[in-house]
Amino acid sequence: MNDGPIDHLIRQLSALPGLGPRSARRAALHLLSKRETVLAGLARTLDEVAASIRTCEICGNFDTTTPCRVCADAKRRSVICVVATVADLWAIERTKAYRGRYHILGGILSAIDGTRPENLAIDSLVSRIRTSAPEEVILALGATVEGQATAHYVADALRGTGVRTTRLSHGVPMGGELDYLDDGTIALAFGARTDAA
Amino acid sequence: MNDGPIDHLIRQLSALPGLGPRSARRAALHLLSKRETVLAGLARTLDEVAASIRTCEICGNFDTTTPCRVCADAKRRSVICVVATVADLWAIERTKAYRGRYHILGGILSAIDGTRPENLAIDSLVSRIRTSAPEEVILALGATVEGQATAHYVADALRGTGVRTTRLSHGVPMGGELDYLDDGTIALAFGARTDAA
Repeated sequence: MNDGPIDHLIRQLSALPGLGPRSARRAALHLLSKRETVLAGLARTLDEVAASIRTCEICGNFDTTTPCRVCADAKRRSVICVVATVADLWAIERTKAYRGRYHILGGILSAIDGTRPENLAIDSLVSRIRTSAPEEVILALGATVEGQATAHYVADALRGTGVRTTRLSHGVPMGGELDYLDDGTIALAFGARTDAA
Repeated sequence: MNDGPIDHLIRQLSALPGLGPRSARRAALHLLSKRETVLAGLARTLDEVAASIRTCEICGNFDTTTPCRVCADAKRRSVICVVATVADLWAIERTKAYRGRYHILGGILSAIDGTRPENLAIDSLVSRIRTSAPEEVILALGATVEGQATAHYVADALRGTGVRTTRLSHGVPMGGELDYLDDGTIALAFGARTDAA
């Protein structure tokens, strides 16, 4: 249309993950048509987030305090779950199946993206383990080639600390039908089979 | 996670059209991890939009001025293209196939949404036509039942003004293969067939 604020808005929205040019235009139009309510509300929230959100100095989580609420929660077990991103931490918290602490690496090793060990929070994990001596470290990294390479690298880095290091199990997902599963998962689930109860 | 600013941000993002809960979380995490750059930039743009964007008093378009640039452009022909939303205006402008003016109804008639004639900018269209006497009014409304009902209603309302009123043609879209087209469009394209050149 023009090179004014509307164009800037569409460009910035379409740069967000998950929004293409079309959905960015739709979102922008929605904001434009509700300037007093939706747009003003979002602008206020962004200002609030910018002013109040910190990156936790211990685990890398986002919260209004540092250490974050998870790290500051004395009721959580002294187990550290190593994840790639804050999104993974959120996904695990939603399950309510884990009541320990976290350590966010900030990505996974990737030759393509140029992410190398020194770009990840591995050194800080090792020194955190040396000072806090957790019962266990759980490597909760994706079941991809890069995720598993990262898990290997982190496990190696932790060997000197003597901490018990585990990984998430792999296999048939809940509700998964064999017919729809990829061959790799089926083969892996056979290899890691357990005794039927 | 918590009921703080991060949750507000995710909730507001997921209320935008085209963003589900999952893509809203991804967008929020992207903003959170680039607070100084991406988040601050978006917040600035939203403030700029809120401060500078007006709704054009003539056609209903969004622009930094009212009348908007389209209405103020003396080189545009005195033809009025009636569209449902600003999104439709943008879609037509992107084609660069039309160099006239616009009138945004603000929606289409819909029993389901409760959109009635008095909710649409039809009265202002009639009085605009009476004062500006355009050469032609083009009804560019969707080829849906509701879009066509709206076109009928607007055409009826314009009958008293004596202005020439046209509609967009319907038929096989460019690049459309008959095999993949719905029966309604094929039947319509037969009924509206033209002499081969």
